[in-house]
This record gives sequence, structure tokens and C-alpha cells, in this order.
Amino acid sequence: MPALVTAQPIVAKYGGSSLATPEHILAVAERIGREREAAPLVVVVSAMGATTDDLIALASRITPRPDPRELDVLMSTGELVSAALLVMALHDRGVDAISLSGPQAGILTDGSHGRARITGIEPARVRAELDAGRVVVVAGFQGSTGSEFATLGRGGSDTSAVALAITLGASRCDIYTDVDGVYTADPRLVPEARRLAEIGYEEMLELAHQGAKVLQTRSVELAWVYGLEVSVRNSIGADRGTSIREVAMEQRQKVRGIATDDGMAKLTLLDLADRPGMAAEVFAPLAEAGIPVDGIIQNVGHDGMADLSFIVAEADLDTAERLLRARLPELRARDLAVSSGLAKVSIVGAGIHNAPTYPARMFSALGDAGINIEMITTSDIRITCVIESRQLATAAAVLHRAFELEKA
Amino acid sequence: MPALVTAQPIVAKYGGSSLATPEHILAVAERIGREREAAPLVVVVSAMGATTDDLIALASRITPRPDPRELDVLMSTGELVSAALLVMALHDRGVDAISLSGPQAGILTDGSHGRARITGIEPARVRAELDAGRVVVVAGFQGSTGSEFATLGRGGSDTSAVALAITLGASRCDIYTDVDGVYTADPRLVPEARRLAEIGYEEMLELAHQGAKVLQTRSVELAWVYGLEVSVRNSIGADRGTSIREVAMEQRQKVRGIATDDGMAKLTLLDLADRPGMAAEVFAPLAEAGIPVDGIIQNVGHDGMADLSFIVAEADLDTAERLLRARLPELRARDLAVSSGLAKVSIVGAGIHNAPTYPARMFSALGDAGINIEMITTSDIRITCVIESRQLATAAAVLHRAFELEKA
Repeated sequence: MPALVTAQPIVAKYGGSSLATPEHILAVAERIGREREAAPLVVVVSAMGATTDDLIALASRITPRPDPRELDVLMSTGELVSAALLVMALHDRGVDAISLSGPQAGILTDGSHGRARITGIEPARVRAELDAGRVVVVAGFQGSTGSEFATLGRGGSDTSAVALAITLGASRCDIYTDVDGVYTADPRLVPEARRLAEIGYEEMLELAHQGAKVLQTRSVELAWVYGLEVSVRNSIGADRGTSIREVAMEQRQKVRGIATDDGMAKLTLLDLADRPGMAAEVFAPLAEAGIPVDGIIQNVGHDGMADLSFIVAEADLDTAERLLRARLPELRARDLAVSSGLAKVSIVGAGIHNAPTYPARMFSALGDAGINIEMITTSDIRITCVIESRQLATAAAVLHRAFELEKA
Repeated sequence: MPALVTAQPIVAKYGGSSLATPEHILAVAERIGREREAAPLVVVVSAMGATTDDLIALASRITPRPDPRELDVLMSTGELVSAALLVMALHDRGVDAISLSGPQAGILTDGSHGRARITGIEPARVRAELDAGRVVVVAGFQGSTGSEFATLGRGGSDTSAVALAITLGASRCDIYTDVDGVYTADPRLVPEARRLAEIGYEEMLELAHQGAKVLQTRSVELAWVYGLEVSVRNSIGADRGTSIREVAMEQRQKVRGIATDDGMAKLTLLDLADRPGMAAEVFAPLAEAGIPVDGIIQNVGHDGMADLSFIVAEADLDTAERLLRARLPELRARDLAVSSGLAKVSIVGAGIHNAPTYPARMFSALGDAGINIEMITTSDIRITCVIESRQLATAAAVLHRAFELEKA
């Protein structure tokens, strides 16, 4: 079909849950058989179902500290397997197709094994295969630095797909997964949560950061920079889903969703001497230990003494506490207070900072439900309250109602 | 250890049974840790245990006719997994090592997927890693044509190892497998069979062809051409094994082993008109159908009419019979006779054709045991009798005794 050559391609990415068994792969091949009528198609695949976890378990039976380069070699096989099987299924349906490894697809990465970043894409091979009328199936999550394989880290297939879509000038990038799309809240916490037909990049990033876990953050950031429309769809269901794109002006200043993130802990350094460089001294050892820190607030009180609070994942609490307690004298802090069993609940929407009534509405709704707010942080598009974990579902539900998210 | 650089490397190949589980891999790593003291080491690995069969089963759940290129992509992952795991195990023991895919190791192949042949090796990368003091672990069974992966076909890892050993000027090539070496007969048929400490290339080829199945034929042919010594060893047992090398002069004119091959069938075209090109007309359709033919004999009788007999595997009998029966008129043969339930038993030894008493001794031994000979074929180093399958064990045992193979 040479007419296809000039058409803009579509990039579609299928996650591991969509490719979990040979039967899943056959179903995906059937869908691709239909979709490829519309436009030239590049398909990015993850490893089948639990393959990645199985390979990690295999390595752990060899050594507790697998070499990062060799772990990359091992992990990269998962996506090659699903790519080859999907192409076999496509051939069986009479669809011309070819599988390409990340390096064959020209995905260039930096040298950091296990968490490489894409530095560029040489699209000549992919373009040539598309020009030959083939569906191009690319093993996601991998690329190369020189003759060396590298993997992009967990969820990297989303980033492979978005980067390919940008380089190829694709009209859009469809991410097929086992959810219907992005919801106004986690449906397990808020039953009346509603699927959003579309959402802005920035809003999506806040929702994903806060626990929506639909799409890897890096891929959304990349799509945002290049203005690429990304659609999240369910590989089994109908053609519903959520489009992530530039938000229209009239949709601004609305709360779009409730983000929830459980399993948090708070650390507070009491009576710190407030002086230049103090914050850096506090956070440098945590950064070295690879502990992400969130929601930093500092209140300067009397006599230039400050209380500094921040949030970490409960799993990191012990390490963080140990590191800071050892430094209390040099930090010149009176003490360290910690509390766990916390959660974050946020309202997210582009332009929230221009809607002065929103904070009050949020705090009232929580207060009316008897929920105590431990901590408040905000960004341009988000207001986050730290509360007790046991009240998270209630908090999400009352905020969902307070901002009328059940209404389309 | 820069002193190692100038030393001749050793190439060692570990088969799937030697790498079946993480525990097997750890044991191999321990052996390598000891062996690398002696010389720079290149290790060629097969896929773990039943991995190759598992991958084929996975493909068969997608389609009965997998595309050969995609099957190559799929199959090649098995060796990458074992290479990466072995290197992790070596690192854990403090042995510097690196895994290389077939393409990374510079193994160049022709373009035929699933049964590619090695056309050459670019050893620069392997040499550089050896020079850096590393054990180089190469994924066997695979190479590349341009940017395309290709696999060498079943048992191709033996050929990868021998080709690397030749290119690197290795002092020898050790093939580790789950047998102790090459025996004077199949020990399951002849309990008194004895391991041979050494055997000639040609003898090994005849034994392997006839069913010894210890080492892939192609790898022996390649070693023969370049005069490379190949040792077959058990990866678990002691340092016993069989060395395959040029036979010393004084060892010629001896029977070295009994080869057995079960599951054979015989076809005989009766009263063929004996004319030029007749044999080609008979065998061309079988060759097109991919049916290997063995032990062809033709007796020209009265009036220029001939009977033409040959042997095929029982599994190919139905197809071969159908093809030939359809051509009986144009072949101008009176009829086709078939018989199944046959086996081949052979005595093998370099220089047998110069030992005129051997055929008589062989036929007498079989006759004394009441075994009827259906057919006889010979080569320079082999005399083969086709007999009934049910008498194969007896035949192997009486020949083993007749030629005193139980004696060292």
C-alpha cells in the first residue's frame, strides 16, 4: 500500500498485562490488523505479564547484587520475546510485520544501565520498514549506547513509544493498558470516580506523581515538551480512554481529579538554626541514599529557629531517620520527630492557583468530615493535604463530591 | 593479569544440561573460576535446560508456522539469558567477566534464518575483553548478518565454540555436556561399552552421524578442517572425557566403536529400467521434500533391469512412499516395496577399508547370533548392516565383543 507511506504514522504501545499470554497476543494482533488500515503503524511492546519479575527472580537466585550491565542483557530479552511472538501472530493473520530490538529501531541511550535515558532516535530503519508497508513492532524499554544494550528502567516502554512517536512525527501515541484511562479519583477508593475523556499534561503529571500510575512520568514530560497527544486506552474494552494533551482554555480553573498516595511518613526537625545552607545539609545525605523527599515545609518561628518538615515513603522512613539522627548535632537541631501511617490527598487542576476559593473549599470539606490535616503543600495546579492513612478513602470521597467530579 | 594476554586462550562450551538451573550455573562459575588461572578463557553457552523447547512451545501457541526470522529473534533470547546469569555468577565470585551476544562477539553468518552458517568471525571485541583480563561469555547458537540476528540451528553452540577457538588460535576447545565422552557403543545397548580417551575426526563424524549425538556434526567437520583439538567432557564429573583429534598412525586399522541408529525404513524400487539419470529422477522429489536418504544400493540384474534400495527414517516413510508411488509410471518401475522396523549397526574405524578380514568378521558375528542382514553399505571407515530393530541390542553387543572393544 504505497499510499500509506505519506500518511502520518500512529504509534501504539501495549503493556505487559495486554500481552500476558499467547491468547492476549493473538487478541492484540487482531486489533492491530484492524488499526493498520487507518495509518502506518509502529507498535511498542513490553515484556509479557510477569516476565520482568520472573527474570529478576532468576537473577536473585544467582546473586543478591547482579551486575547492572548483565541485568540489562537479561531484562532486554523479555521485550524481544513479546515482539517476536506478536509479529508471528500478525503474519498468521496475513499482516506484513517485522520485530526490531531497541538498538535495531535506532533508540539511542546514555550509558547508565538499568535506568538509561533516551538521547535520540535514528529512525531510518523504522521508516524503511514502514515504507515497505510493514507494521513495525519495537521491543520497548531498551536502547543502545554504541554496541551496548541498555534498559530504560521500569515503565520505560511508555517512554520508548512517546520518543518514537515524536521522532516519526506520529499523529498520536496510544498507550494500551489494563485500565480504561485516567479517572477523577482512584475507583477503588471512590466508587463514583469518572473516567476523564481528556486531561492536560501538567495535570496528568500531578495525578501520576501522586499515585495514578497509569503512565510513566518521563513519557508524559516528553510528550508535553513536544506537544504530542497521548491516549491511554484499555486493550480489551471499547474505544474509550483518556487523551493527554494541551488543555483548552475554557477547561482551566477546574479541579480535574483527586490524587491519592498512601504509605507516607513525616519527619520534622525541631528548632533548627535557620541559616544559609541549612536545607542543603539536611537533604544532601537523603539524596545520596536515593530517598525521594516530598512536600517540604519550613516555619520560621521565634528567635530565628525553624521547624522543618517533609514527607518520605514509609519504606524509606527508617533509613531517613537514622541518617538525620546521626547528624542532629552538626545540624544544630533540638530533636527529630517522626510519624508514620500517613497519606496524601490532593486536588489537581490546571489554574487552581487562580481560583482563590478552592483551598477553603478543600479544607472545609475535610474538616466537616472530621479529618485532621497534618500538613499542606501546594503547586500551581495542585493542593495537597497530608492526613492519616485510615481516613484516606473518606477524604477522597468527600473531596470528589465537594468539587462535583461525578458530573461530566 | 597482563601476562595472560600473550597466552593462547582456551574456549569452553557449556550445553543446556550443564546450565539447567541457577544452581548448575553457580557450579559452572566455580569451575570457570579455577580454569581461568591456566589461560585466558572464552566461554560459549547454550540456553538453560529446556528453554529452547519452551520457547518453541510458546511460538506454537501463536501459530503453527512461525516466521523464521521472528523465530530466530525469539530463540536467541535463551542464550542471552544464560550468558548474563553466568556472568553475574562470575562477578559474585570476584571473576571479571562480560557477556556478549553472538553479534557482539563478531560471529558473522549467512542470511538463512534458523539454520545459518558461520561465514566468519570479527574477533576484535573478544580479543579486547580478553586483553582487559576478562572471561568472555558468548551466547552460542547465534550470529548476525548485517543488523539482523540469525541462529545456527539446533546444536549450533558447538559450532560457535569451535569457530571462535579457530579464529582466536585457542590451544583447545572443551565441550562440557551431560555425558562423559564418546563411547565404543551406546552404553544403554551395550553395558560393557568403554569411554574412548581419544578418537579421530572422521571416526567421530561416522559415530555422530550414526546416532552418537554427542557433538554436532558441523562442529566436528569445522575442527577437522583446521586441525583443532576438541574435548568432550562431563561438566559435573572429573577431568575425564574424549579428545577428538588427528588419529595417530599406529591407531589406524582398528575398529574404534559400534554406531547404532534405530527407527529406519527401507524402500526398494523393483525392476527399474537402468538408464542414465534414473537415480536423479528417483531422489530429486525426496530431496525437495527435505527427506534425508541413506545407504543407497543398486543391483543391476538380468535384461538391464535394476532393483534400487535405500534407507529413510521411519518418520519420513509415509511421505517418501507417497511421492515415489505417484511416480512409478514415469520411473518405469514395476513396483515399490517398503519395510519398516529396521535399524543400522556399524563398525567404525579409520582405515577399515584396508583391513580385509573385518567385513567377514562382522557378518560372521551377526550370523552366529541369528541376525539376518537386510542390506550392507560401506565407507572408507565404516561398514554398516541394516537389520531388524528388535535385534539391534544383540547385534551391538556381539560386534562389541567380536572386535574386543571392551579392551583398552
